[in-house]
Amino acid sequence: MLHSRYPGLVCSVARALEVIGERWSLLIIRDALRGVSRFEEFQRSLGLARNVLTARLDHLVGEGVLARKPYGTTGSRMEYELTEKGRELGTVVIGLSNWGDRHYPNPSGPPRRFEHAECGSAVEAALICTREHQRVEDRRLRIVAGPGLSRA
Amino acid sequence: MLHSRYPGLVCSVARALEVIGERWSLLIIRDALRGVSRFEEFQRSLGLARNVLTARLDHLVGEGVLARKPYGTTGSRMEYELTEKGRELGTVVIGLSNWGDRHYPNPSGPPRRFEHAECGSAVEAALICTREHQRVEDRRLRIVAGPGLSRA
Repeated sequence: MLHSRYPGLVCSVARALEVIGERWSLLIIRDALRGVSRFEEFQRSLGLARNVLTARLDHLVGEGVLARKPYGTTGSRMEYELTEKGRELGTVVIGLSNWGDRHYPNPSGPPRRFEHAECGSAVEAALICTREHQRVEDRRLRIVAGPGLSRA
Repeated sequence: MLHSRYPGLVCSVARALEVIGERWSLLIIRDALRGVSRFEEFQRSLGLARNVLTARLDHLVGEGVLARKPYGTTGSRMEYELTEKGRELGTVVIGLSNWGDRHYPNPSGPPRRFEHAECGSAVEAALICTREHQRVEDRRLRIVAGPGLSRA
């Protein structure tokens, strides 16, 4: 499946997009992050045909981004929640949201706010230095060849 | 144009995806981040038909993500570089790359490393609290309705 769309598969961005780059996947993950879990809720939020939504949810379950579990008294209905792997995409979804709010603002203000549960301050996606755990300015980012590049 | 694809336009993620969600856009931005600037280099990297690449570059220039400028002695050829707005998408691109490397690792190792120019340590995309400037764990993220939600 990783061979289907992009050349230069050596690229980690292309590999990630193979899994979640499809138009609706990031919007499903966005909804799941804010607590949407049931098929009908996803459908209402996204306005997507049932068969398309089913296919996208199945794909995300197959990739381990969402987990499916029974709910209700009979246990015959299913709901979806983000796995740890899926929750990690919060950085990407919130990065997109921050960028959208900054450059294509909604006239009524941002539709969602992301808060730190401890202190209530705004949470943003940012680049951080893993040594100092501090934010890194765009201009201080250096991109160098890694060990996997020679196989490109 | 913002009305073409997604319902619930109130969502900042959907608005961002309208601009850069098309399959190739994030890969063009990835290439520009690592210094690719000329049409032929983008084409070699992406293996994309010339007319499709032209359309994607024009779109990203039109949205102010890339800037086009002449190069060479005659000034008749153009190169592309990320604007400030485009560079801000580094967080999203690197977030996708981090996630791809973690969950779909390249057997030879990551193809690119992101480093802090000051200290050489790894740079990652992460959620940070804007008050403490510290990393926020996924579980400590709270998503609440913002002022723009009621217009949904």
